[in-house]
Parts: sequence; structure tokens; C-alpha cells
Amino acid sequence: MKIEDIGEFELIEIIRNTIGETPNLLLGIGDDACAWTFHAGIHLATTDSLVEGVHFNPKFARWYDLGYKALAVNLSDIAAMGGLGSIALVSLALPGDIQVEDIVSFYQGMLELARESEVSIGGGNISRSPLISITVSLIGTGSVAGMLKRSGARKGDLVAITGFPGSAAAGRTVLYNPCTPDGEYTTQLVQSFIKPVPRLAQGHVLKNEGASSAIDISDGLLADLGHLLTASGLGATIDVDKLPLEPLIKSGFSLKQAAELALSGGEDYELLFTASKNAMKNIAKEIGVQMSIIGRITEAPPGHIELTGENASLVNLNTAGWKHFG
Amino acid sequence: MKIEDIGEFELIEIIRNTIGETPNLLLGIGDDACAWTFHAGIHLATTDSLVEGVHFNPKFARWYDLGYKALAVNLSDIAAMGGLGSIALVSLALPGDIQVEDIVSFYQGMLELARESEVSIGGGNISRSPLISITVSLIGTGSVAGMLKRSGARKGDLVAITGFPGSAAAGRTVLYNPCTPDGEYTTQLVQSFIKPVPRLAQGHVLKNEGASSAIDISDGLLADLGHLLTASGLGATIDVDKLPLEPLIKSGFSLKQAAELALSGGEDYELLFTASKNAMKNIAKEIGVQMSIIGRITEAPPGHIELTGENASLVNLNTAGWKHFG
Repeated sequence: MKIEDIGEFELIEIIRNTIGETPNLLLGIGDDACAWTFHAGIHLATTDSLVEGVHFNPKFARWYDLGYKALAVNLSDIAAMGGLGSIALVSLALPGDIQVEDIVSFYQGMLELARESEVSIGGGNISRSPLISITVSLIGTGSVAGMLKRSGARKGDLVAITGFPGSAAAGRTVLYNPCTPDGEYTTQLVQSFIKPVPRLAQGHVLKNEGASSAIDISDGLLADLGHLLTASGLGATIDVDKLPLEPLIKSGFSLKQAAELALSGGEDYELLFTASKNAMKNIAKEIGVQMSIIGRITEAPPGHIELTGENASLVNLNTAGWKHFG
Repeated sequence: MKIEDIGEFELIEIIRNTIGETPNLLLGIGDDACAWTFHAGIHLATTDSLVEGVHFNPKFARWYDLGYKALAVNLSDIAAMGGLGSIALVSLALPGDIQVEDIVSFYQGMLELARESEVSIGGGNISRSPLISITVSLIGTGSVAGMLKRSGARKGDLVAITGFPGSAAAGRTVLYNPCTPDGEYTTQLVQSFIKPVPRLAQGHVLKNEGASSAIDISDGLLADLGHLLTASGLGATIDVDKLPLEPLIKSGFSLKQAAELALSGGEDYELLFTASKNAMKNIAKEIGVQMSIIGRITEAPPGHIELTGENASLVNLNTAGWKHFG
């Protein structure tokens, strides 16, 4: 059944039933706004979109995964502040010939992650549109103490990163290549692209252990490091030899490709962060996932990044991250 | 200059400068999320979109007005709860050939209303897209006491409405008609469509004076009354003769057209509300804008609306409001 067969209001009723009870809310889907009680403190809010043909190819994307990812990319921003998510609003612009069960599947995917991360879907909006555009806004909570701003890096801080940057871009390359054989290789990298895990627990560790700044690397490691450095008014050196290269990427791509994917792949929802040497030791003990120290903050001009290490000469710096309109 | 000439990050810098200081925020545009301090209480949140070709025709829409309206439609939802807006997030999906000064103009229009209504623009997101899609999410504050839910109407309550419903739809008809002469007639109705005034002060009066329920009539008077009645499990009679008809509409359209515009025009950001006879008297004293009592809540089946009055026979109920995919 297509959504144009049932109309907006019946679709909202189906979504409401899919979401079910939202005990954290005074008022959920079905009024002019959602409402909830909040104790005094710090609020965080962020918004991010997935646009058909830009962020996903509808030929390869499953609706369940889109629902998961639309929330994940927002949770990643909240994680990069050291916060937690609480309420999500979902705005869908959709062509009328989308199947109703696809929208249900979208919400089921989002609910998988919402339940894991204790987020309530508070409401949203549905509009007709010639192409699919998904915008999620996420409201969360944080604290002033330890808040992970981009602007907090200090000279001499170490630069580190969670996980294996480049995995999502490698996964996208694999997914969109019709000659890719099936199997474990495909599956694991592709999952990095279609179902990124927001680093909420890691953001919490960074905040508690005194990291000086953090950012998620959705635009690519170098591009987002550039944002962090510009905000902090400092530069950095990055040792290309210390980049963590996912074994599957190393086996499937050349060293040059692998290093470029790691530095500029984009859509990795890993955390890039800075901390003093001592704080970094404590972070390494607590963080619980792959973590690599890859460089150091310097007094180079704001935003300037120097690549060092034997492999530095391999890398073409023109591929400096995902830019809209770039 | 086109936005694709300067890229996403320079555009964000220009937007940041356009918005200027945001003293209510701990952290505004330029980090992974915005942050602010909140005292204990009730939060409200809502989201709404304007999609090119669906909600506006780019041939007739000015960017300044789009910015104003994108915030206004969200403030209207918060007004319909009796609340106040506080933080807005702006998600823009844009073709690369949009002019930078148009985006600046968009934010200036939004800022006009944001300043009037004490809302801070906290952040947002910019994506490339083949067509323009604007999503604003608004976080606000409310109170449990007097919260204007859709579900609160009671049998015997009077039904009333602010302003002149149908004005926006009449304005849209005028705006999109190439034969329309210029002049006052055009201007005033068209303004109702392109620059609707959210009824924040009126929502506040309704909450304080004990209105039992409220909704904004963005989908049209009958459609939104239907939503309110369904939520309340009741029906209503509406006296078509008591509908407030804007003099300019009466002079430019037939009585049948005028009544149908008022009942089902859509995009009027007026408040439809219910209250006991006594509460309605106090509301009428305080509300400060055109207000009309147009009907009464009955025990008819949930959502059922009976039209009464001499003009009721004029109206074709098939035109029952704006429906996406309808």
C-alpha cells in the first residue's frame, strides 16, 4: 500500500502505533508539540539530514537502516559534546508512492537505536515532496563541567581518534560497486557505512577524564580536525604512519588509498579528540574501543595541519573531506 | 555569488555572522551541538517543513519571507500549546546555484520574528539537494497547568477561532494568479499567506483563562477541528453563518467560495479553541484580536462535525482541508 493511498493523517496514526508508549513524555505524537518535564541543567540540541541522491542511494538503502542512521548521525553530534540524547523529532519529506510498510520499517530501525540510547521519539512532521529528505532534530542533556567543545584544544595536547576512520567510505565504495562479491569483507565495511555506531559511551569517558576538545568526523578526519583547530586557534601535526587502518581496508585497497580513506573518507561517526598526555593515559584505560594517538597540537597557524611519517608523501591533500557544494 | 562558489563551511560562517550574538546560549553555531541552561520545568518541541513546489513556489517566494514563515509555522504550534519558543534549529537542503545573499536574506527574515518572539537560532545543518527543503525545529517552554492539548474539549464547550480563517488561502489564490491587479487588496491577503503571525500572546491568554483545548488551523478549520474532536472523543456543530469572513475576501470571492475558504483553506496560523461559556467570556475580554464563537462541542461520534445556519447548504464538505498525499 502506498502512502498516497491512505493520506497523511492515517500514516501518522500508523507511525504513532509503531512507536508505541513514550513514558518519558507528557505528550507525544498527535498534538501540536510534544512536551516533557526537565530538571534544571544543560540542554544540547542538534539537527542533521539525509537527502536522497546525496547521502544515500535509494537503490541500495534499506528503510530500516535509514531510520537507524538518521538518528545515529544526530546522536554522534551529541556524543561529541559528551552528552546524552533524550528527545528526537523526525521530519520526513516523501513522494506519495512510498510504501507504508517502508515507513514503518524506517521507524523500527530508528526505534532500535532509540531504545538502546534511551531516546524518545517525541513527534515530527510529514510533507509531500518529489524526493526523499529526512531531517532528525535531537535534544539532549549535557553538563558545563567537561563539555567537549571544538575550541578547547591546547598547545602540546595529543590528538587521538576512536575506531578505524575510512571504514564508512570504504563501505560506500564497496556497496555502490556492482562487481563486489558478497561475504564477510563486504558485510563488515558496508555496515560501517549504513549503520554507524554513535560513540556515546566514549564521549562520556572523554568528558569525565578531561579531554580538552572533541568533534565527530562526519566530514572526514582532516576536514573535521581543521574545524577543531580553527575553533581552537591552533595547528597540528598528524603522523600518517600512526593512522589505524582497518585490516579489511588494507587488504582491499592500496596503502595510498587506505591512508586517503582514513584521512578524508567522511561519514565515519568516530570521535576525534585532544587531551594532555596524562588525561590521554586515563582515557585510553577507560574508553573500551580501538583508540589511536595520531598527532599533536602545535602553534602552527589556526587550522594548519602538517602530515608527518614515512607514508605522508603518499597522501594527496586535495581530498580533504566531504564538502557540500565543494 | 552562488553558494557552490564558496562551499558549505564559508556559508556557515556567513550565517553565523548574520545571526550575531546569541546571549541566551552557552554555545551557538559552530560546534557539534548548541547548548543552553534550562531551569526545571516543562519543555515543548515541534518541527515543520517548507518544501519547494509544495509549500511555496520559488517564482513568487522571497527568501526573507521564507525565513520568517519557516519560524512562524513552528511558533504557531508552540502557541497552540500555550507555550513560548526558545531555541530554533534550521536545516536547509539547497541546490548549489542559490545565491549567498538569498540565504543571508532568509536568516534576516527569520531573525525579525526570532527577535520579536525571543527565540535564539541555536544551530542547524546545510545539505546539498536538487530542490529547496527547509525544516525548522523549535524548542520551547510551557507549563502543565493549563497546557492546551487537543484532547481537552468537553461536551457543551463553545468553539471559537482567532482572526479570519481563509485569508491565507485567498492570499495564495491571489498571489498565484497572474491577472491579479496590484494594490491594497492584493497586499493584505497575500501577507496573510506569506507572513502569518503566530498567535503566541493569544495562546498565553487561552492557557491563563482556562480554555479546554486548542489547535492551530494550518490544515484548515474543519480538518483541524476534526483532529481536535477525534483527540477529545467528541463531535461539534459549526454555524456557518457565524464564520468571520474577511471583508476583502467577501468582496473578491462569492459567498460560497468565501465560506469554503474559511472552512478549509489551510495555512491560516490562527488558533481554534474550546472553552466553557464562562471561560470564553474572560478569553474574549483578554485576547486582543478578532475572535469569533462559531459553534459548540456535542456528543456526536468522535470527529463528527455538523454544519448549521442558512449558509450551510452552500458548502461542499469534500473540500475539507489541506492533506499531504490526500
